Amino acid sequence: MGAGGGARSKRPSFSCFMIRTDLNIGLFGFGVVGQGLHAVLERTPGLRARIGRIAVKSRDKARSLPAELFTFDKNDLLSDPTLTVIVELIDDADEAYLIVKEALLRGKAVVTANKKMLAEHLPELIEIQQTTGTPLLYEAAACASLPVIRNLEEYYDTDLLESVEGIVNGSTNYILTAMHRDAQPYAAALAKAQELGFAESNPALDVEGLDARNKLVLLLAHAFGLVVGPTDLLAVGITGISALATAYAREQGLIIKLVAEARRLPGGGLAAAVLPTLVRPGHELAQVHDEFNGLITQSGFADRQFFLGRGAGAFPTASAVLSDLSALTYGYRYAYKKIHQNAHLALTPETAEVEVLVTFDEAGAAPDRADFTAVHEEFSSAQRGSYLTGTIGLAQLARAGWLRAPGVCVVRLAAPLRAAAGVAMPILHEAVGV
Amino acid sequence: MGAGGGARSKRPSFSCFMIRTDLNIGLFGFGVVGQGLHAVLERTPGLRARIGRIAVKSRDKARSLPAELFTFDKNDLLSDPTLTVIVELIDDADEAYLIVKEALLRGKAVVTANKKMLAEHLPELIEIQQTTGTPLLYEAAACASLPVIRNLEEYYDTDLLESVEGIVNGSTNYILTAMHRDAQPYAAALAKAQELGFAESNPALDVEGLDARNKLVLLLAHAFGLVVGPTDLLAVGITGISALATAYAREQGLIIKLVAEARRLPGGGLAAAVLPTLVRPGHELAQVHDEFNGLITQSGFADRQFFLGRGAGAFPTASAVLSDLSALTYGYRYAYKKIHQNAHLALTPETAEVEVLVTFDEAGAAPDRADFTAVHEEFSSAQRGSYLTGTIGLAQLARAGWLRAPGVCVVRLAAPLRAAAGVAMPILHEAVGV
Repeated sequence: MGAGGGARSKRPSFSCFMIRTDLNIGLFGFGVVGQGLHAVLERTPGLRARIGRIAVKSRDKARSLPAELFTFDKNDLLSDPTLTVIVELIDDADEAYLIVKEALLRGKAVVTANKKMLAEHLPELIEIQQTTGTPLLYEAAACASLPVIRNLEEYYDTDLLESVEGIVNGSTNYILTAMHRDAQPYAAALAKAQELGFAESNPALDVEGLDARNKLVLLLAHAFGLVVGPTDLLAVGITGISALATAYAREQGLIIKLVAEARRLPGGGLAAAVLPTLVRPGHELAQVHDEFNGLITQSGFADRQFFLGRGAGAFPTASAVLSDLSALTYGYRYAYKKIHQNAHLALTPETAEVEVLVTFDEAGAAPDRADFTAVHEEFSSAQRGSYLTGTIGLAQLARAGWLRAPGVCVVRLAAPLRAAAGVAMPILHEAVGV
Repeated sequence: MGAGGGARSKRPSFSCFMIRTDLNIGLFGFGVVGQGLHAVLERTPGLRARIGRIAVKSRDKARSLPAELFTFDKNDLLSDPTLTVIVELIDDADEAYLIVKEALLRGKAVVTANKKMLAEHLPELIEIQQTTGTPLLYEAAACASLPVIRNLEEYYDTDLLESVEGIVNGSTNYILTAMHRDAQPYAAALAKAQELGFAESNPALDVEGLDARNKLVLLLAHAFGLVVGPTDLLAVGITGISALATAYAREQGLIIKLVAEARRLPGGGLAAAVLPTLVRPGHELAQVHDEFNGLITQSGFADRQFFLGRGAGAFPTASAVLSDLSALTYGYRYAYKKIHQNAHLALTPETAEVEVLVTFDEAGAAPDRADFTAVHEEFSSAQRGSYLTGTIGLAQLARAGWLRAPGVCVVRLAAPLRAAAGVAMPILHEAVGV
């Protein structure tokens, strides 16, 4: 861009061969996000990107665009040399994986929003990018419209980053907001979230915390250079949140949010988990309402930062896809530099512990007190059920048989994940006053 | 990075000639930010950047680093071919301009945090970058640690961006927070801000709104591709905030913040100004405390986003410089693409209007009611003074002689800048509930 040819030879380290190019897109999927992307592209002539062909599954649906744009054969897109970019917005993660892999191997840049597919195949997809040099971008896969992935990749040096925590699933946050603020029952709130198009087509991905866990896999890769599988991470969702836990939160003046967190431990390891969490009203995450997402980074010199924006919905997701398309026009790709810089980092749940509230019914399953490092409070009521609060190792909690037992509800207390065995850590949640 | 040589020819549009290079830095200035940068670099071995030489002004100060690192002659840095990057962190904007210009012309990449220098010389500095191809990065010049400039440049397509508004001066926000939350008098709060190193060495730059205006110049360039001079923009600071205005805010349950705002008008123009503004407690900017900065973007599809982080201080500023250094290692430079895309955009204060509270003393200067499109409320008290609230054209306000008169205080009411003459605009501040 504008580089004077004569002067270039003096600055080889900073010259970058960029071609601002017209993008001809092969689009997989024409659901709400795909249609949103079409609408966004119509409004952004400056980008010089067009959808050249669309592959869809259903032959029966009425389409808002001319029939000749559509095909039912994925190879019509993958083998078309004029389509230089594949945008993958289908629901089926397994099929998406085959499409994305094939496109990359054929030298087509790929943009995807499919966090499930990415989380399950990240090591292979990174390797393919590094072997072929073909970019795969997925800003839309974490926090939709919020610019999270590229910021973590480019701004936050791992040497300095201490933690990333946030609300990364818009559907569950919509449900929790409706339950807390509007006193709606869970089922009604879930139905409304689905009606509004925030929820995954399989709601279990949202409400069991699995979608948040998939996003945590992506955050770990770009924040800390650590590539793990989703099943390496503990995730507890919001389906089991009990009336007693809700009452406890209300009585304490706290708000339950589903929080994904990754935190460096003093010993050099990393703790990461998705857990329903009690948040104080003055905490940044308490300001994240409805389908919004919010992410807090804590780093050595920049200190605490907070990003808030829409985390679900067709247009916010499409706008993140748009930002990836824009990045492709200047040759951007993820360098994954932290993976090389941080070969020493690993998940060490055995060295982490967490403060939890556990509610249960004494007649049914109950938490095993022996699993806890310390039990702080115990409460029992014939009408309301029982609870205890205590400190438990993260690995111990993940292993506990009672964690998934019917009638047992685990909610993290406000303190962050921390090192086990009395290693002092600053309580970072206290950094911003109530 | 990792591009397979054999496969490259298939993907010319996405290949980018990047050399992850070791940076040898010539540093101008070794004040709190310069020393902060040194400390940050010590903690980030992954970046492979080192300070090769430091130019300072004072021969008398004791230095914490070996004497041979220091020089008092700027040419020792500018003419040293081994120093590939100049980091400019001196206080004197005129001297900084000479250094930055000379460095760019000599093909040295430059990182600076000097917003005054940038705002005053932006057109020329952009032209030099485009002529020479040498990058000039200045993430630290707006909102310190918050990744604002690069995000606006890369993420938010101007076709879709509606507004950027925020608290961009940490010093005045520290003062306003101390006055509001801690009931401190103005002078004590200012002294404390200076003691903590948040304030510019010339506090008038902060408290008169001039530093915020300089940052607004940078935001306009990267958000909307509009390059204007600082004096093209109305800026009202916080020195004139009256006891009556403070009481009005308190009685209405509102908080006074110094807000910089740029907003696209329905007619195709842009309105931009820095004004003390009454903010509701539920508004995002009300959550910006102490020396923190906060920025809200509103765009067509991504909708509303909010970024919160430290906006002043040695380490937050140094961490933004660090992110620029990191960006240089992969060949990043601002493309200023929006300048080319948006040649049609211009400031049109004549078509914008604003709702204001004006407090005054009837014995002294008073606002001329004829300047207002509408006067909504008038109040007069022998003890407390007088106020009126009303709607006034932005250009009219900027021209008004009474605006700067002693005893007159102008504070914007919560509504954003908007189009004049009854053109309906959504009241975007209402988008997030109280």
